[in-house]
Amino acid sequence: MNRELDSEVAFRSVTAADLRRFTAEASVAAGVAPAHVPYLVEGLVEATLRGIDAHGVYRLPHYLRGFREGFLNAAPRVTTVRSKGAITVLDGDNGLGVVVGQLAMERAADLASECGIGMVAVRNSNHSGMLAAHVLVAARRGMIGHFLSNAPALMAPSGGSRAILSNGPLAWAVPRASHEPIVLDMACSAAARSKIRLAAREGRRIPKGWAVGDDGEPTTDPRLALSGALLPFGGHKGYGLTVINEILSGALPGARLPLEMSTAFLAEDATTLDSWGAGHLALALEIEAFGERASFDRQVEALVDSLRSAGRDGNEILPPGEPESRTRVTRLGAGVPLSERVLDDLRQLAEELGVPPVDEAA
Amino acid sequence: MNRELDSEVAFRSVTAADLRRFTAEASVAAGVAPAHVPYLVEGLVEATLRGIDAHGVYRLPHYLRGFREGFLNAAPRVTTVRSKGAITVLDGDNGLGVVVGQLAMERAADLASECGIGMVAVRNSNHSGMLAAHVLVAARRGMIGHFLSNAPALMAPSGGSRAILSNGPLAWAVPRASHEPIVLDMACSAAARSKIRLAAREGRRIPKGWAVGDDGEPTTDPRLALSGALLPFGGHKGYGLTVINEILSGALPGARLPLEMSTAFLAEDATTLDSWGAGHLALALEIEAFGERASFDRQVEALVDSLRSAGRDGNEILPPGEPESRTRVTRLGAGVPLSERVLDDLRQLAEELGVPPVDEAA
Repeated sequence: MNRELDSEVAFRSVTAADLRRFTAEASVAAGVAPAHVPYLVEGLVEATLRGIDAHGVYRLPHYLRGFREGFLNAAPRVTTVRSKGAITVLDGDNGLGVVVGQLAMERAADLASECGIGMVAVRNSNHSGMLAAHVLVAARRGMIGHFLSNAPALMAPSGGSRAILSNGPLAWAVPRASHEPIVLDMACSAAARSKIRLAAREGRRIPKGWAVGDDGEPTTDPRLALSGALLPFGGHKGYGLTVINEILSGALPGARLPLEMSTAFLAEDATTLDSWGAGHLALALEIEAFGERASFDRQVEALVDSLRSAGRDGNEILPPGEPESRTRVTRLGAGVPLSERVLDDLRQLAEELGVPPVDEAA
Repeated sequence: MNRELDSEVAFRSVTAADLRRFTAEASVAAGVAPAHVPYLVEGLVEATLRGIDAHGVYRLPHYLRGFREGFLNAAPRVTTVRSKGAITVLDGDNGLGVVVGQLAMERAADLASECGIGMVAVRNSNHSGMLAAHVLVAARRGMIGHFLSNAPALMAPSGGSRAILSNGPLAWAVPRASHEPIVLDMACSAAARSKIRLAAREGRRIPKGWAVGDDGEPTTDPRLALSGALLPFGGHKGYGLTVINEILSGALPGARLPLEMSTAFLAEDATTLDSWGAGHLALALEIEAFGERASFDRQVEALVDSLRSAGRDGNEILPPGEPESRTRVTRLGAGVPLSERVLDDLRQLAEELGVPPVDEAA
């Protein structure tokens, strides 16, 4: 799942611009609807830029193979199932969540322009990639964005023995007057599955509380954990948040529940992404509908300033998302590090699709 | 703050009906607006019934003293500051959050009836008590309810040395077809301040990760913790959720931020609640606007059933809020246990206000 995190591989540097060019050309060649290409590029390249490599361009071959093998729809006709006032329900037509989620957030922002708030629920979608990409759609329009998704069953409830819940991904973005938006992008699992996979590769134990094995017992053996289930962060609180997430992003849009989705992608040798029927929920808030924008901006900056000054031992406290936006600035300037393994996959993809490969001489 | 949790005190049993009667009569005698009395009774007695004693009738004397001493407004005129489409901003007129929050949720539910979703932001309010009371207003109307509040600065950011944030309280309620609603009612602190106070009384250490002392260093001494700051649950994830909570319930409604609010109530000998200028955010979702209600209900029950069956070692996994609704059933049937100390306070209150005391012969 996450070769990118492998510590023993060599990295080469490419430019963000060429990575965007390649992702766009490969997507077009694979039949992605032209209007959707910018969203796919945004979702994948921005993830890589922000250092969220597990949701970055490394995923492109898996997605495109999913299109080719018919598991995923490269050119979905996203349709409105229901609509009332400030809410809309969309059918994602088995498209990729990376794209469908951003379309949903655009609609939520349209509704918020009219009604102060807009909510769009999505059914019949798939992997949503880095959630920050979806909420940043709202932030770029000056709005607060919130995005929830469900996913296949990966996580046990706290005190539980087997996977019933998704990992409860959720994100928020809050635009700031003269800075990058505050972005909270997290899952409700104690740790990402990619970290457990890395520990397995490196022969390290994992901390207690991350997972149960396939016997349902808590384990510190990453191999047992990979055939078992993740555990929620923060015990019953993380569990509770995930249950609400499943209801809002699964039951409310009428999507599949986690147990109804395929987990074939979890296999070590999986090379494609099959159809999930996942659900999402996108929310946008028009800040100006609630009060003076300047006053909101001042309060947000006062909060960020007070946080920054509250560190222990000279430790700087950053608002959520700032570490990632700093990585982004670095990678935009100094280049984007990709592992030889990911570059191999992208080279192979370039050959298959007949498009110029990523330029590694950057 | 939480004598109710003191383990060495004697308890007596009273009936829920008489507790309601007394709370209503005392509130009327203290000048609470007649239309607000049912909300105050609901907030306090339901908290006691659900076992959330720290937000239960134990608080009544503090609230009523706050009214008498002019810190809180017993009969606030809650007014609309702004309104657009599916959102409204209310000024709580320095009323008690226990009441103002429920009024806000009624308005959010009204908006959701029209628009599928409704959001109400509140400024100029105070302590919101048990958050479940607010979200249950929506659930009783068949809707999903969500409620956030801010509060005075009690909590440091993760890695931080001093209190900048509130404890980030949040709640959700999801109505079910033939069962009590799912209710998630939590704060984003690793532990409630009342638990630390109890540890201090009993001379016990507290776990690492609950708090920092007033020197800004992590501590396991509850006395140092009480003069220091709480820490978020789940490290940077709980921290991130709290930052978003402060923005949504503080900056968005134009309320005070945590650092701008008085923390006088934290003193061990505090007997009243002073004015906070707190903010809330209430959200209601009309489930039927998103799809067939029967289908939603089936999915929620399927989720709950799968959770229930996933326990380890015969451990039953309950949906959020079920432990509290079981306590409620017990207390409705067998009576409500109140400590002698709380009963003393209520007896004194009865005498001051000239209303019949709670009947302890039940």
